[in-house]
Amino acid sequence: MAELPDKRGAFFDWYLEVIEAAQLTDKRYPVKGLNVWTPYGFRARRQLDAVLVREIEATKSEPVEFPALIPETEFRKEGDHIKGFDAQVYWVTRGGSTPLDVPLVLRPTSETAMYPIFALWVRSHQDLPLNVYQIVNTFRYETKTTRPFLRVREIHFFEEHTCQIDDAAASARVASNLAAFEKMAHAFDLPFLAVRRPEWDKFPGAHYTIALDIPLGEGRTLQIGSIHHYRENFSRPYGIQYEDRDGTQRFAHQTTFGLSERLVGAIVATHGDAQGVVFPSEIAPYSVVIIPVLSAKSTADPRPVAAEVAERLTAAGCRVHLDDGEGRPGAKYYYWETRGVPLRIEIGGREATERFVTVASRLGEKERVDLATLEIDIGRALERFDATLRVKAHEAYLQAFELALTLETVRKREKIYLISWCGQEACGHEVENAVDGALLGVLEGEPPIPVPDLPGCVACGRDGGTRWAAAGRPI
Amino acid sequence: MAELPDKRGAFFDWYLEVIEAAQLTDKRYPVKGLNVWTPYGFRARRQLDAVLVREIEATKSEPVEFPALIPETEFRKEGDHIKGFDAQVYWVTRGGSTPLDVPLVLRPTSETAMYPIFALWVRSHQDLPLNVYQIVNTFRYETKTTRPFLRVREIHFFEEHTCQIDDAAASARVASNLAAFEKMAHAFDLPFLAVRRPEWDKFPGAHYTIALDIPLGEGRTLQIGSIHHYRENFSRPYGIQYEDRDGTQRFAHQTTFGLSERLVGAIVATHGDAQGVVFPSEIAPYSVVIIPVLSAKSTADPRPVAAEVAERLTAAGCRVHLDDGEGRPGAKYYYWETRGVPLRIEIGGREATERFVTVASRLGEKERVDLATLEIDIGRALERFDATLRVKAHEAYLQAFELALTLETVRKREKIYLISWCGQEACGHEVENAVDGALLGVLEGEPPIPVPDLPGCVACGRDGGTRWAAAGRPI
Repeated sequence: MAELPDKRGAFFDWYLEVIEAAQLTDKRYPVKGLNVWTPYGFRARRQLDAVLVREIEATKSEPVEFPALIPETEFRKEGDHIKGFDAQVYWVTRGGSTPLDVPLVLRPTSETAMYPIFALWVRSHQDLPLNVYQIVNTFRYETKTTRPFLRVREIHFFEEHTCQIDDAAASARVASNLAAFEKMAHAFDLPFLAVRRPEWDKFPGAHYTIALDIPLGEGRTLQIGSIHHYRENFSRPYGIQYEDRDGTQRFAHQTTFGLSERLVGAIVATHGDAQGVVFPSEIAPYSVVIIPVLSAKSTADPRPVAAEVAERLTAAGCRVHLDDGEGRPGAKYYYWETRGVPLRIEIGGREATERFVTVASRLGEKERVDLATLEIDIGRALERFDATLRVKAHEAYLQAFELALTLETVRKREKIYLISWCGQEACGHEVENAVDGALLGVLEGEPPIPVPDLPGCVACGRDGGTRWAAAGRPI
Repeated sequence: MAELPDKRGAFFDWYLEVIEAAQLTDKRYPVKGLNVWTPYGFRARRQLDAVLVREIEATKSEPVEFPALIPETEFRKEGDHIKGFDAQVYWVTRGGSTPLDVPLVLRPTSETAMYPIFALWVRSHQDLPLNVYQIVNTFRYETKTTRPFLRVREIHFFEEHTCQIDDAAASARVASNLAAFEKMAHAFDLPFLAVRRPEWDKFPGAHYTIALDIPLGEGRTLQIGSIHHYRENFSRPYGIQYEDRDGTQRFAHQTTFGLSERLVGAIVATHGDAQGVVFPSEIAPYSVVIIPVLSAKSTADPRPVAAEVAERLTAAGCRVHLDDGEGRPGAKYYYWETRGVPLRIEIGGREATERFVTVASRLGEKERVDLATLEIDIGRALERFDATLRVKAHEAYLQAFELALTLETVRKREKIYLISWCGQEACGHEVENAVDGALLGVLEGEPPIPVPDLPGCVACGRDGGTRWAAAGRPI
């Protein structure tokens, strides 16, 4: 195979070829932007979903699934929201040859599917909080260029929707979501930036939006998710109200937390290298691949040992693939490197005779592991692999930022710039023009790189507020 | 709460009320036939899906996911198939306000989504067999009365699609699917009937169809799945061909295996009783519910022991719900009985003091379990529970059948009738008129009840073939 394009110089070329080489998706489906999840891509997605489920259920969220089809009448109840989505929803207008009385929208997100039912589920303060989530596909009629996992028309989507007793409880849920995402991101070995989007960029219908952005290099960012505080913006039109302890009827304050298959893209983009994809051990379709190496020189058959190793590691909880098919070992090494499997176990005649295996990490480390301590040593090798991956990703993350005390710096358009911003929209747009991108928002939490005391606004020089903001170029 | 209707005398009333009482679904979504999976229903479905995944992957099938939207051009390629679905597909005709150049069908099943891609994946005999499956939702514009899990418009669906080298390999895959389903059905404690559907009732486009039917009592049957042998019926129009060892191009022989959320309905219908739902332990949203019983008489607080039991059983792999909220114990017992939790663990003051728990099975057994042997004893109690459930289900299953040597017996319309059938369509229709239902098909495997040597056809008296057939009333 030809060499991959340069990740730094030609990021999107690199991205597309890496995904193609790893066969994570098949783009040849006859509708553009509707891609096929191949077995390998699906297995990665399944691992990823399992992390989302584990972490969100740890915060007492319950799984549900609402219909994919939303009647136009419900869809149109919240004005800002509908304006945000109207141009890009798919409309179902016929059943068989019969025109539908009420056209149906294929969900672009599920507020308008869920909230009429929430109005029935929430009656009393005892029904609160209501925390539910679903993992489903959503649909958007994209007119921009589509790219696997980054911009598609059928989107694999995680969405939590909650009803809280008041504004403060909703803010607490937003904080809890952010903490849950930190744990998810740890499993993905993925550093991220959490920012409060400016007013003009928040979710249609939201009171405020916290976006989760991943640096892609050269100042580019990828929004992989968001957490919204809705206040009563939806509970009023959908009538989600409860009787409080004192007998008064109040509207619930709502939050949502959304993540998408862009996470797969973010993992590919963050960890991938010149050899192809690199998967964190928990996300890898297979955490370990075993390759018996047959040799004319050796009389010992490595295959029984390979089978033993496969069985023992499977029992120990690894996702093991035993590649005992035809083909030269070198070609197999290359194949699984491209596909990003964390550990490769080579077993030749000498290994079989002396009861050890050779373990090669996708990050280049090699070690000899005795069969006697196989499970423990492979467990440790996987932990070391993730630790190394995390350090590498963190180093690249730090490189993605630069402190900008003047718009001159922002105009270099090479990094994500940490800036001081007075909060005024006019200044925000000035920053956006300078970066040729977006004011990503005000940082939640500490800045990723060392910063001085907050100076005046980078645009107008006046009061810079209390927190640093970031500007970059969202793709 | 009022008493449930009689399961025997008023089956569908009973069915609807049992589901309502257990809150497995919410039917109040503003489009009829599009129901909401509640947290409790979703958890049951998730358990069920896990069984399907485990058993199908054990037969070397790989997970995939194909788009939900199918362009009309692909959808129309196989004539019989399209005739079978044309009247009940949903059509997507607009994106935003733009009419689509090619209208899209919301998948009613995925042959026409997958097979254009299979034509790209299958090139050589080395690519065969291709065994892939997906668990997705499918859509049918139902005009008949909808019922939760039994007939809905968005259907949770399992579908395996395979390409085989020849007719014999495809038949072997059909047999492998049937064996896999036997294992799935074992986990569901669900006896079933496998029959080869008559020609006039096979799947649109199939060479033959093996249907999986569940008796619902009084001669009614519920088809919960099917396995199809397609021969080259789809591979020809979709161009799925491979180069054989000898260099000739041949068309693949295909099979499919489909199961739907009707399995949830079948589990409710088979195991449910006058107290509500009864879930097999592997499918139950919670296999164990723990209820601390506070009492004014006792000074010992049962709650720390309840927490300990919850923690230990969770670690042992049980799905545990600790019901330590407000409410009287009796009300809680009733609540969880209605919802079909296999085991209830009661912990009062005496239990806490003497370090034991009282275990009540959903099927009425009670026992005292020492905390010292908690995990082992609960494991055994769950096994006993499933064994008992399986025996009860099997007894009811045997009661569902009757041998019919004449059409007179078939006309009683009280059972599923085992009959001899010559294979001619005219005789088949005579049987169908007699039973006021359907000739379900010729049995795969042994008859469920003792039968004599096969007599002549029940309709014409001539040659009755080599296998018994069944007739009943599909709902």
